[in-house]
Amino acid sequence: MKLDINCDMGEMFGQHRLDEDLGILRWITSVNIACGFHSGDPHVICRTVEAALKQGVKIGAHPGYPDVHGFGRRSMNLSMREVYELVLYQVSALEGITRALGGTLHHVKLHGALYNEAAERPELAEAVVRAITDIRDDLILYALSGSSLVQVGLENGLYVAEEVFADRAYLPNGRLAPRELEGSILISKEEQLHQASQLVKEQRVRTVDGSTIELAADTLCIHAESSDSLHVLKELHRWAKQNEVCLEAIAVY
Amino acid sequence: MKLDINCDMGEMFGQHRLDEDLGILRWITSVNIACGFHSGDPHVICRTVEAALKQGVKIGAHPGYPDVHGFGRRSMNLSMREVYELVLYQVSALEGITRALGGTLHHVKLHGALYNEAAERPELAEAVVRAITDIRDDLILYALSGSSLVQVGLENGLYVAEEVFADRAYLPNGRLAPRELEGSILISKEEQLHQASQLVKEQRVRTVDGSTIELAADTLCIHAESSDSLHVLKELHRWAKQNEVCLEAIAVY
Amino acid sequence: MKLDINCDMGEMFGQHRLDEDLGILRWITSVNIACGFHSGDPHVICRTVEAALKQGVKIGAHPGYPDVHGFGRRSMNLSMREVYELVLYQVSALEGITRALGGTLHHVKLHGALYNEAAERPELAEAVVRAITDIRDDLILYALSGSSLVQVGLENGLYVAEEVFADRAYLPNGRLAPRELEGSILISKEEQLHQASQLVKEQRVRTVDGSTIELAADTLCIHAESSDSLHVLKELHRWAKQNEVCLEAIAVY
Amino acid sequence: MKLDINCDMGEMFGQHRLDEDLGILRWITSVNIACGFHSGDPHVICRTVEAALKQGVKIGAHPGYPDVHGFGRRSMNLSMREVYELVLYQVSALEGITRALGGTLHHVKLHGALYNEAAERPELAEAVVRAITDIRDDLILYALSGSSLVQVGLENGLYVAEEVFADRAYLPNGRLAPRELEGSILISKEEQLHQASQLVKEQRVRTVDGSTIELAADTLCIHAESSDSLHVLKELHRWAKQNEVCLEAIAVY
Repeated sequence: MKLDINCDMGEMFGQHRLDEDLGILRWITSVNIACGFHSGDPHVICRTVEAALKQGVKIGAHPGYPDVHGFGRRSMNLSMREVYELVLYQVSALEGITRALGGTLHHVKLHGALYNEAAERPELAEAVVRAITDIRDDLILYALSGSSLVQVGLENGLYVAEEVFADRAYLPNGRLAPRELEGSILISKEEQLHQASQLVKEQRVRTVDGSTIELAADTLCIHAESSDSLHVLKELHRWAKQNEVCLEAIAVY
Repeated sequence: MKLDINCDMGEMFGQHRLDEDLGILRWITSVNIACGFHSGDPHVICRTVEAALKQGVKIGAHPGYPDVHGFGRRSMNLSMREVYELVLYQVSALEGITRALGGTLHHVKLHGALYNEAAERPELAEAVVRAITDIRDDLILYALSGSSLVQVGLENGLYVAEEVFADRAYLPNGRLAPRELEGSILISKEEQLHQASQLVKEQRVRTVDGSTIELAADTLCIHAESSDSLHVLKELHRWAKQNEVCLEAIAVY
Repeated sequence: MKLDINCDMGEMFGQHRLDEDLGILRWITSVNIACGFHSGDPHVICRTVEAALKQGVKIGAHPGYPDVHGFGRRSMNLSMREVYELVLYQVSALEGITRALGGTLHHVKLHGALYNEAAERPELAEAVVRAITDIRDDLILYALSGSSLVQVGLENGLYVAEEVFADRAYLPNGRLAPRELEGSILISKEEQLHQASQLVKEQRVRTVDGSTIELAADTLCIHAESSDSLHVLKELHRWAKQNEVCLEAIAVY
Repeated sequence: MKLDINCDMGEMFGQHRLDEDLGILRWITSVNIACGFHSGDPHVICRTVEAALKQGVKIGAHPGYPDVHGFGRRSMNLSMREVYELVLYQVSALEGITRALGGTLHHVKLHGALYNEAAERPELAEAVVRAITDIRDDLILYALSGSSLVQVGLENGLYVAEEVFADRAYLPNGRLAPRELEGSILISKEEQLHQASQLVKEQRVRTVDGSTIELAADTLCIHAESSDSLHVLKELHRWAKQNEVCLEAIAVY
């Protein structure tokens, strides 16, 4: 049994709190690096890539809408061409940087509103998938488990990793409960560990209405901004050891 | 006898005046596309790359300082590491986009203050050259003719095209007269054509103090913003035909 | 009979084409200056304000969504609080700059998607109007003639100038035909002059389906980017003289 | 005996860590709010202004160079006109927002490289001072104690508060030891408290070479990013109580 733990990182400008941020790399197997549009800049990107390479953590591009003020979490009404172009730009930047620094870009995971909207809207998913395949068709697409982005990716020949969350509540239809809903963020470490364990071992999750649904779980996202994230990560490592779950990134076969 | 005519393009945001800008592609052999830091955005970049591919014009990345308000023309005090990182980011973006759209990135030409400072300061030149070679060591470096950037590029195994200007006056030491000096911008079409012709045929130029100096001229830059640029370009084509100068981009042998 | 002619200006970064842009000030009575979010920067703003003061043209703030790549023309899903905050920031900047340079801010006109959406959505209109009144309740609100922004402004005690366009086609409901519709932009000078004349003298306009509707016309917008704008402006001046229409900005009584 | 404790805040984009940041307001008497150029956005600014008003903390504008990637800490070669313009824009934005939200802007403190350079270069200091006086000549200028900005401010009729630092080492000439020098940042709480106490009570400080110099100390800056800042602030409150030092912001008489 295997588990990939991914984390969004490099979501800052300048040198602020960078060292603090990098500390989490020891506890994850793949990292999604902000590409400069919702957050991130060349210095933060390069230092995060270097640290990930040193730690043996797989590197992914984490493109988002061009919205610094809203941290890429606000919907923007772009044409499909514009979506294609902004994914192309951001992933190209990360792909070239990672190669130049001695590594290989491993995956792409969308950020914020773009992540959520590509999960729901097939034409948006297609624009994203086309940008990725036009860059390198062996890039792995991390996508919300069960979403239409998963389907569009697979139909276009991409290897897709279905992503689940330890700290977000699920709706009965398999979607994430919106952030503004009370209880949508799981705060207690126990809840997070329980949900992670259920997802990884059973490929199931208990939803907000108490029902349990099936959900593919190739990769588990941990949010570094939650105060207890480091603690949860350490517990996950202990749990993995006890349950003979091997922590490693997804590979393209 | 051969001549490459290059032009800086895509120096805008959004769709403003894009079509007008693209018209000039018919008359040049290589284009330097702004990468988003002093100007340019994914849409403008992609449309310019596509138009250049269609027209058979060679595509270069045109990275600059991250200074939209100052259009990359203001000096910024960056560490050499930061310079390396921002060239890496911008050239990677253009390299990936060009590849995804079916072409190959041909060259790199710095913009504005970064162009001028890398011409003078060897440690800056080294940071730039290292970024380029780390991406692809067969990228051609367009650099101010006779500058230390030329030397640093050659020492590090890059193919270097020495660049001259039809519309800028030269100092006796081979440097461009600063923009703020009166007479530094050649306005009349006759002067521009005469200087271009002298540079290309004789590899010489008359300087501001009346002396004539030798200057290698592999590629000639035309500034599209000068009102008569299109006229000058057409005259250059006529002159090239009459003088059996073949207009084509530089190739790596 | 009076007519205010307004124009959006300062929609650029750095010094590009600034002098060219300022030339139009001679022919208008009020100017809407971009505040730095969709376009504009401190240098462009200050130079435009100074030129307007010199020319005796009334100065307005022209706030938009924070979207440089999309020139503020793309819808963004902001909370009403965020809309309030971004109007507050941008109008404050223009208000302070105009005062510091010896003038008085005269009006506020929204830009792009924010202009169109505040015309349709009352809760957005309220956020905008609240920001303006919180800064200075004697600022004039320029708003799409007949829109709900007009109504919300009036209800909250603002003086409102209903705005019409010479170069945009109208729908039978009094809204502007969307830019993507064929024929939505009136290109011929004759059409523009005819529409302007009908609007100003009769407060009526012929719509895309051939019907004629009533439309209040306190201020007429001329777009400087259309190639013939200067020509249209000169014709408007001639027409105004012949028809005894006094060209002057709106005053608060 | 009185002491103003100021802190730079709002130096982020979007909602990241905002609540955490605001917690420090309880322990300071004046706050310098980033204006959006090196950091800060309308939402962060408005929330910080509101929280400061609620807490009775005096509000200052904290303008910096337009350099998000470098957090305003990198020198930029701007004309004096550009410096005037960017201070005008940023302080105007904060002045208008603070007024609209029911308060009054109290002071201006420059950020990063602009702070350091205006302390050394009189012509830069003049551009800054002119921008401030053009907005409101009763704004208090917070400036590095003993610097030429202090002098230029006083000469131009501004009320000036001379600023000292608890956590930065001093050179024998009264300047701050550069950040890149080892020992330039005082890490231990004891050292910080000792330096603060010496500065406030004796208007003296021990410098890096062991000598002690005189230094006016109207306001003490605490950096919130240092991990122990909250602890130091609480100790300062205890120390102030014991030493009958009244913690309150500077007033213009």
